[in-house]
Amino acid sequence: MQAFPRSEAESRLSRLQHIMREAGADGCLVTQNVGIYYFTGSMQTGYLFVPAQGEPTYYVRRSVARAKAESLVPTAELGSFRQFGAKLAADYPAIFPEGTRPTIGADLDVLPAQLYLRLIEAIPAAEWKDASAYLRRVRSVKTAHEIEKIGKAARAAADALDEGIRRLRTGMTELELIMIIEEVMRRAGHAGIMRMRGYNQELVTGMVAAGEAAAEPTYFDGPAGGRGLSTAVPQGASFRPIGAGEPILIDIGCCIDGYTIDQTRTAVIGTLSPQLRTAYETAVTILRRTEENLKPGTTPESLYEQALAMAAEAGLAEHFMGFGVDQVKFLGHGIGLEIDEWPVLAKGFREPLEAGMVLAVEPKFTFPGVGVVGIENTYLITEDGSRQLTLSPERLYEITES
Amino acid sequence: MQAFPRSEAESRLSRLQHIMREAGADGCLVTQNVGIYYFTGSMQTGYLFVPAQGEPTYYVRRSVARAKAESLVPTAELGSFRQFGAKLAADYPAIFPEGTRPTIGADLDVLPAQLYLRLIEAIPAAEWKDASAYLRRVRSVKTAHEIEKIGKAARAAADALDEGIRRLRTGMTELELIMIIEEVMRRAGHAGIMRMRGYNQELVTGMVAAGEAAAEPTYFDGPAGGRGLSTAVPQGASFRPIGAGEPILIDIGCCIDGYTIDQTRTAVIGTLSPQLRTAYETAVTILRRTEENLKPGTTPESLYEQALAMAAEAGLAEHFMGFGVDQVKFLGHGIGLEIDEWPVLAKGFREPLEAGMVLAVEPKFTFPGVGVVGIENTYLITEDGSRQLTLSPERLYEITES
Repeated sequence: MQAFPRSEAESRLSRLQHIMREAGADGCLVTQNVGIYYFTGSMQTGYLFVPAQGEPTYYVRRSVARAKAESLVPTAELGSFRQFGAKLAADYPAIFPEGTRPTIGADLDVLPAQLYLRLIEAIPAAEWKDASAYLRRVRSVKTAHEIEKIGKAARAAADALDEGIRRLRTGMTELELIMIIEEVMRRAGHAGIMRMRGYNQELVTGMVAAGEAAAEPTYFDGPAGGRGLSTAVPQGASFRPIGAGEPILIDIGCCIDGYTIDQTRTAVIGTLSPQLRTAYETAVTILRRTEENLKPGTTPESLYEQALAMAAEAGLAEHFMGFGVDQVKFLGHGIGLEIDEWPVLAKGFREPLEAGMVLAVEPKFTFPGVGVVGIENTYLITEDGSRQLTLSPERLYEITES
Repeated sequence: MQAFPRSEAESRLSRLQHIMREAGADGCLVTQNVGIYYFTGSMQTGYLFVPAQGEPTYYVRRSVARAKAESLVPTAELGSFRQFGAKLAADYPAIFPEGTRPTIGADLDVLPAQLYLRLIEAIPAAEWKDASAYLRRVRSVKTAHEIEKIGKAARAAADALDEGIRRLRTGMTELELIMIIEEVMRRAGHAGIMRMRGYNQELVTGMVAAGEAAAEPTYFDGPAGGRGLSTAVPQGASFRPIGAGEPILIDIGCCIDGYTIDQTRTAVIGTLSPQLRTAYETAVTILRRTEENLKPGTTPESLYEQALAMAAEAGLAEHFMGFGVDQVKFLGHGIGLEIDEWPVLAKGFREPLEAGMVLAVEPKFTFPGVGVVGIENTYLITEDGSRQLTLSPERLYEITES
């Protein structure tokens, strides 16, 4: 039943507590299911309270029995929400001495405002602070256990791509292609969705789309959009049949034991036009150059800027990471329990890379009316460089139909 | 490209505006993707501003092009977030005259606190109000278009159940059974997930689980939990093989063109024990009695109380809708673009049912260590009663293995 070793739970908590003390927070309330799981090994409904020093408590609403069986940190019944402040004060008298205003952080980037306002009422003593950044920083550096899990997801994704490529035929719809991929992943234990932290963002298994449908812009916070199944599902695979000679973007991931991987390969039935082939090769060149600098000490921002410069040099600036006004402003992103973790390879991310970070790097080029080409691998930052976690062979998949 | 008729968009907005005027709100900001889609027919990133009187504006960040092509209400580029307040004041001078504090509602039940705090800064003139209840009330009464879409999802769910039952065998895992079901649904256009409004809640296609694994309690806000695939996915189907003689709960739904259905059937390979059969029949009796009162004028609360009384009469109070402390406190729920809509058949829901509401009613009984039995249909409230939308034959599926 234990999700990960107790020693990992202890080191995760102590890293958070270190950041909290540096930031002057007296306590931190983790409210999101994924965050709670990361620290406790259990994903039941409740709140995890982490003091800046000492033992945390997992206050559980439901299921208490399951949380008790799974949790690596002490659990307590949440009881009345209105009494939560009184309970916290009783359990942590050093943090909540009468008449003071301790600073309590919370994951405000995901906590709904309505619940936040109720927490303010229930815990009137607290001075609230947005602790999202602390939590994201702790989670950006992966443990041995997490890297092993991501490897498992990488294996499933590679197997799924193999099967998709093996069965790819002209006339097959984008939906049919992703269904083949999803079946292999699901059998391997894919949760069915990939968790995302971003508001209004959702992802099932990725973005499998071809030709002009792949190039349709979307709300999705990624370089490739996709037509989707309807205006109510306006992203990713559509009912459009795949034709010969058009770029097929196979951007897939899966979530096994909670951990996600992300990878992209480009395929074509027949051959790509010279323009698209050049763009694909530029994406590969950007990936190679990025790999050279993918090591502790490099800033995420510099990797993005380098890629932008290379795309511009190749005369593809307007096509890079989406087209024109629909471009996204990043080259890659952290990945772990969620698909949109830190750091982001984007402007403003100036904290240098550290060993243990896991990043998906995804240079892509969009040609409206034509399609999207690109490549994406997930990497672990090591002491002196990086190790590729993506297991799929890296090539342009040119399929000859018999 | 048009998601639904313009006249529907107009009637949806005018119902919201009516509620807003009654509640004294000057405007309403819809921030959630599903809410934006409901009113505009487009699900791009941005904010929908609805004045209490007059034309709304859909302020779009990305993709503007796609929103312009899809939206049934006027669109504008969002531009700088910091200038959003100034832009709103310029576009709606009657609502934001200088020196006043107009009351602006927002969907605070889903809007993350961090973004809420940024909106407070960007639109300093606004006096904010939680408009979740208005939005949920408007959406609780479905239009003709919505009912047709739910019917499409019902057809796919019924076909999927047929195929699952046809291929069900002892030794098959719960995951394998749900994979069969998912394949049929996905081919019919299932989005891959069912959207849920509740914080930290997620659902792929439902809860397919058997024997003691089905009876394991979870965080999920439903009567049946399920072991799940791991502690990080602690809900629904597991890798556990299905055995003969154990109850198999097949609680499934799908999301087609954005609209969901929800239904449950109980199956067994061989026969059920007398205890479980009695419980199953009690669930059916509760459903029949509920149907009798499922009509305009009945309060949701009274249906829940009636079901509780019937479960108690049958000596099954402790097993009803989960076991003991892990019970959920409802009999059913509204359903539409999300699986957890209003009204809930629960205490506190005293507004009478209205024609056009769509409800899933799901009496279930949980026996720890043994399994879960029950039934669930989705119904449309009509002028004088209700119409069942669920299309699967209603019976205990007893499967004879050859």
